[in-house]
Amino acid sequence: MRDQSTICAISTASGVGAIAVIRLSGDAAIELADRVFVSKIAGKKLVSQSANSLHFGFIRSDEIIDEVIVALFRAPHSFTGEDIVEISCHGSVYIQQKILELLIKNGARMAFPGEFTQRAFLNGKMDLSQAEAVADVIASTNRAAHRLAMNQMRGGFSREIKELRDQLLHFTAMVELELDFAEEEVEFADRSQLRALTKTIEALLRKLKESFQLGNAIKNGIPVAIIGETNVGKSTLLNSLLNEEKAIVSDIHGTTRDVIEDVVNLNGIAFRFFDTAGIRETSDTIETLGIERTYSKLEQATVVLLVVDLNSAFSVVFERINDIRKRLDLNQHLIIVGNKMDLGIHETMQQLESMEISDQEKLIFISAKLKSNLSLLVDALVNCVSLGNISQNDVIVTNVRHFAILKNAHEAILRVLEGLDSGITGDFLAQDIRECLHYLGEITGEITTHEVLGHIFKNFCIGK
Amino acid sequence: MRDQSTICAISTASGVGAIAVIRLSGDAAIELADRVFVSKIAGKKLVSQSANSLHFGFIRSDEIIDEVIVALFRAPHSFTGEDIVEISCHGSVYIQQKILELLIKNGARMAFPGEFTQRAFLNGKMDLSQAEAVADVIASTNRAAHRLAMNQMRGGFSREIKELRDQLLHFTAMVELELDFAEEEVEFADRSQLRALTKTIEALLRKLKESFQLGNAIKNGIPVAIIGETNVGKSTLLNSLLNEEKAIVSDIHGTTRDVIEDVVNLNGIAFRFFDTAGIRETSDTIETLGIERTYSKLEQATVVLLVVDLNSAFSVVFERINDIRKRLDLNQHLIIVGNKMDLGIHETMQQLESMEISDQEKLIFISAKLKSNLSLLVDALVNCVSLGNISQNDVIVTNVRHFAILKNAHEAILRVLEGLDSGITGDFLAQDIRECLHYLGEITGEITTHEVLGHIFKNFCIGK
Repeated sequence: MRDQSTICAISTASGVGAIAVIRLSGDAAIELADRVFVSKIAGKKLVSQSANSLHFGFIRSDEIIDEVIVALFRAPHSFTGEDIVEISCHGSVYIQQKILELLIKNGARMAFPGEFTQRAFLNGKMDLSQAEAVADVIASTNRAAHRLAMNQMRGGFSREIKELRDQLLHFTAMVELELDFAEEEVEFADRSQLRALTKTIEALLRKLKESFQLGNAIKNGIPVAIIGETNVGKSTLLNSLLNEEKAIVSDIHGTTRDVIEDVVNLNGIAFRFFDTAGIRETSDTIETLGIERTYSKLEQATVVLLVVDLNSAFSVVFERINDIRKRLDLNQHLIIVGNKMDLGIHETMQQLESMEISDQEKLIFISAKLKSNLSLLVDALVNCVSLGNISQNDVIVTNVRHFAILKNAHEAILRVLEGLDSGITGDFLAQDIRECLHYLGEITGEITTHEVLGHIFKNFCIGK
Repeated sequence: MRDQSTICAISTASGVGAIAVIRLSGDAAIELADRVFVSKIAGKKLVSQSANSLHFGFIRSDEIIDEVIVALFRAPHSFTGEDIVEISCHGSVYIQQKILELLIKNGARMAFPGEFTQRAFLNGKMDLSQAEAVADVIASTNRAAHRLAMNQMRGGFSREIKELRDQLLHFTAMVELELDFAEEEVEFADRSQLRALTKTIEALLRKLKESFQLGNAIKNGIPVAIIGETNVGKSTLLNSLLNEEKAIVSDIHGTTRDVIEDVVNLNGIAFRFFDTAGIRETSDTIETLGIERTYSKLEQATVVLLVVDLNSAFSVVFERINDIRKRLDLNQHLIIVGNKMDLGIHETMQQLESMEISDQEKLIFISAKLKSNLSLLVDALVNCVSLGNISQNDVIVTNVRHFAILKNAHEAILRVLEGLDSGITGDFLAQDIRECLHYLGEITGEITTHEVLGHIFKNFCIGK
């Protein structure tokens, strides 16, 4: 049963602004709006106005609450697929609240978080993975995360999954038809075609599954550990990088940004810096524990920035570099940052230059204090992620729910492949295919439960 | 020279929301929007669309920045009187910023605070006092302040002033014409009519001037001093009143409010509570100074809440009451709040009940801790303001600039009246009238300077 209630919410950010938008959606939205809206043109009613039109007037009960602009959308050509009225009022918190109260008094109810988007999904305006991406689009704070979310919202991998699922569904029907004619040993489903399709699906699912590590990192910030001995300038470096970021945005007035501590946007990619305790030889038990923790942070890092003091002897620096090298695995990037280049010992720098470095390594001389060569460091960080290879149409999984389902779907399709190899009977084969179909359907929302929907939309903001 | 640049700004509250609105105004607004907007309907351009229409599409540069709804308004039927494009995008801060950057790259510039409203004024969409009220409407946090601001924005007293100014202007022209025929001693301006008009204007200006005290108090909160001996429950009372307020708003989700310390909305009126040091007899010099300060706060209060402990002997309570009475003037309201009624001494309460109280006084027994009779106290407070007498069409001055000008205008009109009484010559009369006309014109903006405009609009938020 479709929920026919009319829902309302403030859709713009909370607090005082020049204007605020209150959204009303449902079968009775326009009729309800007419009860509180008085057009500047006498007698004009919203119900008799055409879709996608704007109207100037008052919101009033006993007294005039505000002069507003009302935008009218008609089902099914609206965000939710229902009739929608959007009221643009003055951005006073008092006015926003009064209009909301008035709408509720006239029969609307407060929308739950994400309920507009949920209705869009339930009314077939978008599939579930697209609906989920709406929240990611809103939460995106940098170019990379924004691009991935936008891809997903615009159809991204769900289109591809849906297509393969439809083909697989066709084969299942054929395999199941065979079961009805079990005694005749016919084969409606061409096993070699089924095998080819299964392989295509397996490859796609594997690719998607594997993209999650990058996708998740892009969404939450590429983890970067800043490591080094005490007093080599780790904090100065982090502050300089943070400043760099602020300089980028300060020339645009009227925008504020939620600053998440130690997450820095560099060239459109979020990096999540872990500040670590300085490493030094110590007999102090507590300090040793702190340093152990520093080493354990290394494991979580995609990139390790090892800061060394160019003012030290090469032997000291070299020992530290080798110590860290031993602790990293093949997927991790190491950027050796020679700091204090302005005070650096010529010999140390020269010997570092002639040191052998691997493909996963990079050596850069900077002065964190004077902000020299910081742009080289930024380039090196950005190159570790190689976002340049991600095109607007690339499919990268960023959603934990999708990742979990993809893992299950991938296991199921591997069983189908095994079954085909070992020539198991049609009924077992059909069962494995059905399981895979089920998982794929969970991503796009063709198969879903109230519980899953509730979980997905509870994290949305109200008004979307 | 009219500023023909196209201005843009984020008009919704800052931060993340479900949607955000970016506003673009100017002669080239629609053309500029077409450079970044791609309609879902291939080839559709905004320039060829009709006024007051809504359009679905993308904002894009090299890549798609967002799916948006674009609202189109055409001059002169828009807020600013110019062509306006409003872009509703997803409320990600990143997206808001990117769209703004893109608009600026394509030739728009960031709007100054209040520049949209300033253009509305300069393009004759509203007079200056109406434009000023826009900021008050947005800042209003309670029913009373909202009603006054709304009255003013909708024309309020500026209409009346403008009308009287026009009549006065007519008379000045007549008086000045007389000067040209000085030798003939003609009287084009009927002195008795001029006198009647001058009297009407004087009465209006006086009324407006006097309304400022109430208007200012309503806008900023009616000043209430809570006073009493130590430990009579002043803080408990204030907390209970603050709680009362929170209970009122908590059932509306999705609205947050800027809490200003110690300002409480009661029945739609803002009260600004001054917490004071408890009064007691002391030989401590520093404490005596604190108590002196308490007494000086009394002068600023419209209402004094004298909290007394019903658990004390009547003589003690009575002495305190009389002490405070002596310090108040005729315009101040005194509410004697007998607290701890649950523990109260029967005799004290009885004697208080039989005590004589004036029209400006009120006696209420409460228990701040148990929140008993708080509603009686709220009623008493609200009655002190007698907002009930303010109708939706009442004219109350809330603006300091207006008040200053009104004082000047009133003095000038009094001089005109004196001049008429003493029969001064036409040239002196004309000079005084001209001065009054000048001041009246400053309120409505018929006479204004860059400096005045700059001062008014710099306090607006960006995007309005």
